[in-house]
Amino acid sequence: MEKALKGACIIGQSGGPTSVINSSAYGVIRTALDNENITRVLGAAHGIKGVLDDVLYDMGEEDAKELELLMNTPSSELGSCRYKMADPDADDTDYKRILEIFKKYNVRYFFYNGGNDSMDTCAKISRYMARSGWECRVMGVPKTIDNDLNATDHCPGFASAAKYIATSCAEIYKDARVYDVGMVCIVEIMGRHAGWLTAASALAGVVGCGPDLIYLPETNFDMERFVADVERVYKERGNCLVAVSEGVHYADGSFVSEAKTSATDGFGHAQLGGLASLLANVVKQRLGVKVRGIELSLLQRCAAHAASAVDVREAFMAGKVAVESAVAGETGKMVGFKCTRENGEYRCEYELVPLDSVANFEKKVPAEWITPDGTGVTRELIDYALPLIQGSIERPTEHGMPRYARLKKVQAK
Amino acid sequence: MEKALKGACIIGQSGGPTSVINSSAYGVIRTALDNENITRVLGAAHGIKGVLDDVLYDMGEEDAKELELLMNTPSSELGSCRYKMADPDADDTDYKRILEIFKKYNVRYFFYNGGNDSMDTCAKISRYMARSGWECRVMGVPKTIDNDLNATDHCPGFASAAKYIATSCAEIYKDARVYDVGMVCIVEIMGRHAGWLTAASALAGVVGCGPDLIYLPETNFDMERFVADVERVYKERGNCLVAVSEGVHYADGSFVSEAKTSATDGFGHAQLGGLASLLANVVKQRLGVKVRGIELSLLQRCAAHAASAVDVREAFMAGKVAVESAVAGETGKMVGFKCTRENGEYRCEYELVPLDSVANFEKKVPAEWITPDGTGVTRELIDYALPLIQGSIERPTEHGMPRYARLKKVQAK
Repeated sequence: MEKALKGACIIGQSGGPTSVINSSAYGVIRTALDNENITRVLGAAHGIKGVLDDVLYDMGEEDAKELELLMNTPSSELGSCRYKMADPDADDTDYKRILEIFKKYNVRYFFYNGGNDSMDTCAKISRYMARSGWECRVMGVPKTIDNDLNATDHCPGFASAAKYIATSCAEIYKDARVYDVGMVCIVEIMGRHAGWLTAASALAGVVGCGPDLIYLPETNFDMERFVADVERVYKERGNCLVAVSEGVHYADGSFVSEAKTSATDGFGHAQLGGLASLLANVVKQRLGVKVRGIELSLLQRCAAHAASAVDVREAFMAGKVAVESAVAGETGKMVGFKCTRENGEYRCEYELVPLDSVANFEKKVPAEWITPDGTGVTRELIDYALPLIQGSIERPTEHGMPRYARLKKVQAK
Repeated sequence: MEKALKGACIIGQSGGPTSVINSSAYGVIRTALDNENITRVLGAAHGIKGVLDDVLYDMGEEDAKELELLMNTPSSELGSCRYKMADPDADDTDYKRILEIFKKYNVRYFFYNGGNDSMDTCAKISRYMARSGWECRVMGVPKTIDNDLNATDHCPGFASAAKYIATSCAEIYKDARVYDVGMVCIVEIMGRHAGWLTAASALAGVVGCGPDLIYLPETNFDMERFVADVERVYKERGNCLVAVSEGVHYADGSFVSEAKTSATDGFGHAQLGGLASLLANVVKQRLGVKVRGIELSLLQRCAAHAASAVDVREAFMAGKVAVESAVAGETGKMVGFKCTRENGEYRCEYELVPLDSVANFEKKVPAEWITPDGTGVTRELIDYALPLIQGSIERPTEHGMPRYARLKKVQAK
C-alpha cells in the first residue's frame, strides 16, 4: 500500500445522463466523505467545466439523507457537459487552469463519471498531472446507456435503460395487438453506433412479448429488405413489432434517418419526425397497413422509476471502488466490471483497467450475437443482458411522486 | 331484491386499451365465476364483434392463477374493437344477431367495459333486449384514460396514465436541464378533446419538476402566443418544459397537428412526426434554441409497470360491483365513482348511473381549473388528481420482466 495521500477530491459528471449516474456519484461522495484521507469532497458543476470555471459545490455541506436520495435520482445531479479537452501538447490552457484549481483547493483525487470522451478527459488530466509533478490520483467511473465502453463487461446505466426498453416493448406488444385489425409498430431506440440498447428489446421475448424484427447499426440497413421483412411477418402473424436503432445506416454508411429514399421523397424531412416516423411512413406507403412509429426518446435514459436494482447497486459500487482504489494508491484507471454467468448464477467483480484501454474505443454488439439475416439477436445476447436487469429498488415517494435528492449546492470558497 | 335470474354472462372489452382495463375484466370474471346465479362466464373476443361472430371464450376453462394475473396485464386481454352499433330503429341486423347469440348461450348478463362509445353500445343493447322480451341485465364498466366520461368522478385507466405522464415529465424535467446550455422540451400527451391527461402532467410539480407551460384542448391555441410564452420562460429560467395535448386547436377549431402555419411552411407535414415535432420545429426556427419534441405515444396508456394502486383496485371494484348489482336486479346502468377529498382524505364509493346519462357526452376539464392565461392548471386540478395516482402494486415478474396473464382462450361451444 502506498503512503497515505491527504487532500480534497473532486467528483464530476459528464456526457448524457442516465438513471443511475447519481448512484455512482453517491458511491464516490459517501465513500469519500467517510474516508479520513480525503479532507474535502467537491462536486464540479457541469463536469470539467465546473473545474475550469471554479464552480465547485461543497458536498460536506449537504444533508446526509438528501445525498442518499441520489440513489433514486435520475439525470446528472451535479450537471453535465460535453466538453472535449484539447491535446495538452497542442494547447495546454485548460490543463494549466485545472492545475491551478487543484492547487487552490489542494485536490489530490479526481473522479470523473462518464463514457468514452470522459475517460479520454480523465486520461489526459492524469498524464498532465503526472508530468507537472502535482500528485493527484485520477480515476474514471464508467457510465453510459450505450454500453459501448471497452474493457468492462458492461457499463452502469445500460441495464436500467435496457430494462425500460424491454418492459416498454412488452407493453407496446400487448397494446398493439388489441384490435382485430393488425398493426405495425416501429420503436426507435437510442444507440448511434452500438446496438446494445436496441438488442436489449429482445429481452421482452422471455415473456413472449418481444419484437418480431430487430435492426442494429452493426449491420447495413436495406430499405427494400426491411419492407419485405415487415410484410412477411405481418402476413404470417397479423401484427409486426419492430425495434430499430437510431443509428441504422445504409451500406455506404449514411444514416437512414438522414437519407432521403425514393420511398420518402417529398416528405422525407428527417428533422421533423425521427427515424421511427420515417420508417412508419415508408411502411404505410408501401404496404398500406396501419402503422405507428414510436421514439422512446429521453425516457429510456432517465426513467429511474423502472431502474434495475442490479444496475443501481453496481453503479454505486463503481464509485465506491474508485475512491477506495485511489486512496490505496491507484491512479489512471477506470473501474471495470468482470462478470461470470455460470449455471444461471450471475457474479460481478470490480477490477481496475487502464484509462488508455478505454478511451475513444467503441465496443459493439459482436457479429455472432446477431442472427444471420440481421433481423434479430441470438440467445447469447439474452444470456448476457438478462442478469443485468434484475430487481427493482424501493423508491421513496412524496405525494405519490418519486422523491428526488434536493441538494443545497453550496459553492466552495 | 329481484328474483334470482340464472344464466350465462358475457364480458366484452371495447375501445383503446389501458393499463388497468384487465383489472376490471378480472373484477367481472372472478365475481361472476364465484356467483351461483351465473352459470357460465364467457369472454367476447374483440368486444361486441366477438358476440356477432360467435367467438366467445369460456372463462371457466382458465387457470385461476392466470386469471388473477389479469390484474398486472396491460391492454385488453380479450381483444378490443371500435365498432359503432347502428341505431336499432334504422338497422336492427346486429341486434337480432346479438339476441340470437344470447339465446344460444342463455346469456342473461352482459357486461361491457369501455368508454363513451361502449356505453352507447350498452345502452342500445339494453333497450333492444327490453323491447324484445329477452330478460338480460346489461351493465357498463367504465374505462378510458381520457377521463371524459360523464356522471363519474373519474374513470379507471385515467389514474395510471396520469401517474405515468407525471412521472415521465418529472424524469424529462431532470434530464432536460443537465447541461449548462438550456433546452426546450415539448411533450405531446394524448387527449383529442379533453385535456385531463395533459393537465395531469402538472402533478410532477408537487416534487418541483412540473412543466413550465401546459396547453389543453379546452382553450384555443395561438402559435404566436405559444412562441412568446416559451421565449419568456426560457429567458427567465434557462430551460422550458412544455406539456401539450395532441388535441390543441386554433380558434377556428382546426387541429394544430394538422394545420400548416406560416412558420412550418415547407416542412409542416404533420403525418410524419406528430404535434411535438411540429411545435419543436417552430420553436427551433423562431427562437434558435436547442429543442426536443417527445410524444409519449402508446406507452402512456399501456405502461402497467407504473400503474397506480388506487386505479388497479378501483378498476377491479368497478367490475365486481357491476356483477353484484346485476345479480341484485339492476340493468341499464354504469358503475360510477363518487369521491370525496376532505382534509387530505380520499374516499371512493361506487354508485350506479343510468347509461343514457353517460353515453356520447364528453366531460372536459372545467374552465375554472385552467389558469387565466391558458398555460397551466390550478390547485383544484392537483387536489382532484393527486389522490388517484397513489401507490404501486407488487407485480409478479419472470426473469426480471413483468409476468402477464396467459389465457388459454378456449372457445365456447
